[in-house]
Amino acid sequence: MSPASSAFVPALLAARVIPVAAGDGIGPEIMEAVLGIVKAADPSLRFHQVTVGLKAYEAGQMAGIGEDTWEAIDEHRVILKGPIMTPQGGGYKSVNVTMRKTLGLYANLRPCVSYHPWVTALQPKMDVVIIRENEEDTYAGIEHRQSDEVYQCLKLITRPGCERIVRYAFEYARTHGRGKVTCMTKDNIMKITDGLFHQVFDEIAAEYPEIQSNHMIIDIGTARMASRPTDFDVVVTANLYGDILSDVAAEVAGSVGLAGSSNIGGDCAMFEAVHGSAPDIAGQDIANPSGLLVSAVMMLAHLGRTEPATDIHNAWLCTLEEGLHTADIYRDGISTTRVGTRTFAEAVTARLGQKPQKIAAVTYRADASEPVAHLDVPTRAHTPAVKTLVGVDVFLNWDDADRDPDVLGGKLLTVAGPEFELSLITNRGVKCYPNGNPRTLRTDHWRCRFLLLKPPTDLREGSVTIPNLLLRLADAGLDAVKTENLYTFDGVRGYSQAQGE
Amino acid sequence: MSPASSAFVPALLAARVIPVAAGDGIGPEIMEAVLGIVKAADPSLRFHQVTVGLKAYEAGQMAGIGEDTWEAIDEHRVILKGPIMTPQGGGYKSVNVTMRKTLGLYANLRPCVSYHPWVTALQPKMDVVIIRENEEDTYAGIEHRQSDEVYQCLKLITRPGCERIVRYAFEYARTHGRGKVTCMTKDNIMKITDGLFHQVFDEIAAEYPEIQSNHMIIDIGTARMASRPTDFDVVVTANLYGDILSDVAAEVAGSVGLAGSSNIGGDCAMFEAVHGSAPDIAGQDIANPSGLLVSAVMMLAHLGRTEPATDIHNAWLCTLEEGLHTADIYRDGISTTRVGTRTFAEAVTARLGQKPQKIAAVTYRADASEPVAHLDVPTRAHTPAVKTLVGVDVFLNWDDADRDPDVLGGKLLTVAGPEFELSLITNRGVKCYPNGNPRTLRTDHWRCRFLLLKPPTDLREGSVTIPNLLLRLADAGLDAVKTENLYTFDGVRGYSQAQGE
Repeated sequence: MSPASSAFVPALLAARVIPVAAGDGIGPEIMEAVLGIVKAADPSLRFHQVTVGLKAYEAGQMAGIGEDTWEAIDEHRVILKGPIMTPQGGGYKSVNVTMRKTLGLYANLRPCVSYHPWVTALQPKMDVVIIRENEEDTYAGIEHRQSDEVYQCLKLITRPGCERIVRYAFEYARTHGRGKVTCMTKDNIMKITDGLFHQVFDEIAAEYPEIQSNHMIIDIGTARMASRPTDFDVVVTANLYGDILSDVAAEVAGSVGLAGSSNIGGDCAMFEAVHGSAPDIAGQDIANPSGLLVSAVMMLAHLGRTEPATDIHNAWLCTLEEGLHTADIYRDGISTTRVGTRTFAEAVTARLGQKPQKIAAVTYRADASEPVAHLDVPTRAHTPAVKTLVGVDVFLNWDDADRDPDVLGGKLLTVAGPEFELSLITNRGVKCYPNGNPRTLRTDHWRCRFLLLKPPTDLREGSVTIPNLLLRLADAGLDAVKTENLYTFDGVRGYSQAQGE
Repeated sequence: MSPASSAFVPALLAARVIPVAAGDGIGPEIMEAVLGIVKAADPSLRFHQVTVGLKAYEAGQMAGIGEDTWEAIDEHRVILKGPIMTPQGGGYKSVNVTMRKTLGLYANLRPCVSYHPWVTALQPKMDVVIIRENEEDTYAGIEHRQSDEVYQCLKLITRPGCERIVRYAFEYARTHGRGKVTCMTKDNIMKITDGLFHQVFDEIAAEYPEIQSNHMIIDIGTARMASRPTDFDVVVTANLYGDILSDVAAEVAGSVGLAGSSNIGGDCAMFEAVHGSAPDIAGQDIANPSGLLVSAVMMLAHLGRTEPATDIHNAWLCTLEEGLHTADIYRDGISTTRVGTRTFAEAVTARLGQKPQKIAAVTYRADASEPVAHLDVPTRAHTPAVKTLVGVDVFLNWDDADRDPDVLGGKLLTVAGPEFELSLITNRGVKCYPNGNPRTLRTDHWRCRFLLLKPPTDLREGSVTIPNLLLRLADAGLDAVKTENLYTFDGVRGYSQAQGE
């Protein structure tokens, strides 16, 4: 069994106690407002206040998360979190990054909805959910400076990582009655990494024939999100792309202050507003609790408590369309009454059971409960590919001979044997030996591709050829700073060729 | 002298013959239209037709570029290019990628301008130039599949690469009378690579005190480009970010069909429209030549021919504001006459010497000639940092013992000595040894950090410790698929720490 299948375990339906962390700035007052509404709609829930944010930082927790919080999450598998202020400098770590990495929260969900004309929006008709992979990509945080001039970050994309985010997207679409999932990558350039994401998307889409699926290149996809968001329903994409895309979508929906989000893991989940802690308006009873309220609705739906989720969402829409608006969205001519945080929350509570008249009402279906936890589809059967070593890319830090690649090539020809032949040298991915172009910028960082003259008979034989090559390079006074082995997988080349190769 | 300084050589002022490649689809007719206008405005120019696109592909040139084209670029250092159709499959290569890599075209320029109400735009007031680094980042095309499950792409950011794109952006702003340059990165996550881009931006910005400068995180920066583009003037950013950002900017400007672009190298440059070859409307005299015309204006300005550049640009604006529109932008109530390609070009030619009345007129200043070629500022003096080897990250493909990191850690402890100590093991950047979290997804790809117990006395001693470690790993039956050496530079750590390290 692949480890990926451990991502889906039933756990959350039992939760009746919700750990809540009020957070900093406006956090306590919006949390109080939200919990008042939730209690009224779902009286059997209880809430357990835990310590996250400044109080935890001040108590010496460098990641801003109290021990009580970890214990509560371990027990209840969910947390509703207010906005956090991370102190600058001094080694303090982000609460969100720490929770995401520690809890394996692999999916970030951002519904982006317009409420025009009640809330001004560049795109008045918009109802998109962006599902962003949350752990991989260049955000895995693996960076190395390799020479005086050259710095590197690894972009990692894995099959199990792709499988679970893509499957989550289709399961989400199915349980929330959404008809289309769009995948966005840049696989016309990154054929191996983004190519994998796209391929896994196609494989899993085939299991959901009732849901439309398509793929777009991320550049034009993001542009269309800004100009024609009604083309989209659910979008699934890699970490960096999703980061940019979800900010664009929220911005043109005009509703960043009203937006909720969730971070979903295999056996726990975290829900929070998109906005920050706004310390400048804290304690004045003027903050808009809507973002956190929408997050709480997402949490209830995730927990299978679809009836209170539906009631709260519709009561909130009623309040919006009646023009009872907090100061951040109040506009003369559209709004009817400027209300504070508490009054807004009381207005929502008073409308529980009502449906909006102008904005479309929302229904969370009873079968929408626990989309992840209910998922008992086993991880795709998969026979590991046969991996064969065919060579190695050795990266040299070299700054001699006016950086003439022909000089370097000459040295390497003699070092390559007897196991390898020198195939080519590139600088920043552009071939500069043999037959380089004098226009190519030459940094002090050279990728030298050595191909094995005959395939190794076993793993051990292959494993020693590369260190032996590195020892010969050291003897020649050359400075190898990194290596990347070259493999075929089931006979298919597992590495990109250089421009001009 | 650093190789970066070879980026700026005076060469283009002498050009009086312009190689032009009509390209495919609508290419020939829009090129004919554009050259008619340019000849009328700048009679001393001559044009040399060269072969790019389908004709070259059909002649067996896999990159779609004829030998005559390479020769003409070598002689005249510039090319005006029509849109190209790349045949699918069969090993054909993109003309643009090939030219960019072969000619070292490091800067991609995309002016994004709104012409509202004459051309409908989501953002009616917009005049932004996006300057995108064109060679580095994940687009260097260096990808490796490293195990059954894990695929990798290298993101490379170099100091000379950053220096020349950032300097180009400030030189462009200075010579074109633009007052502000905004840098966008994601250096809150990628502190080493994007951190370098941001740092170089700050260093070079200090040399241009008369130009405002600021930095934004790319996610919110792209969102603001969609919602408040008047916040921006010139934007400079890395390759991938620029790819997405420039598509968003062009889309909200509503003028993709009118947009030109340039690709600038150290000693040559290529100019082309942003749109494609539109084969469905080819040969019908209905295509809009504006994108290629704007590109030709950018070329004339780049060549220092500022007077004809100004004349053509203003004549084109006159034609737009008088409502003589091709079918793609024709709208009842705004447009006055629907015109074909030829008639539109004749209308622009007839207005040479006129200035627009409603749209602001453009002036290319006489001192705007050859911004790059005039640049005799030497490359920044730079003493290479002292690099000291402190350890190595070895990446293992390991799928034994239920992927229990404690089992792997136990094996590695015995292999590390005598030179190294095992510092930690991560999976996708998350620490899983020592003291891992059972929730962490475990792929078959493990990064194992070994730190040297004492610094090497010389390069040779350091160079042999790593192959010796690899040989011990091979003896233990472990499969090392890549290495990344760990260095300090002038005593500063040159690698990221893992979450939890």
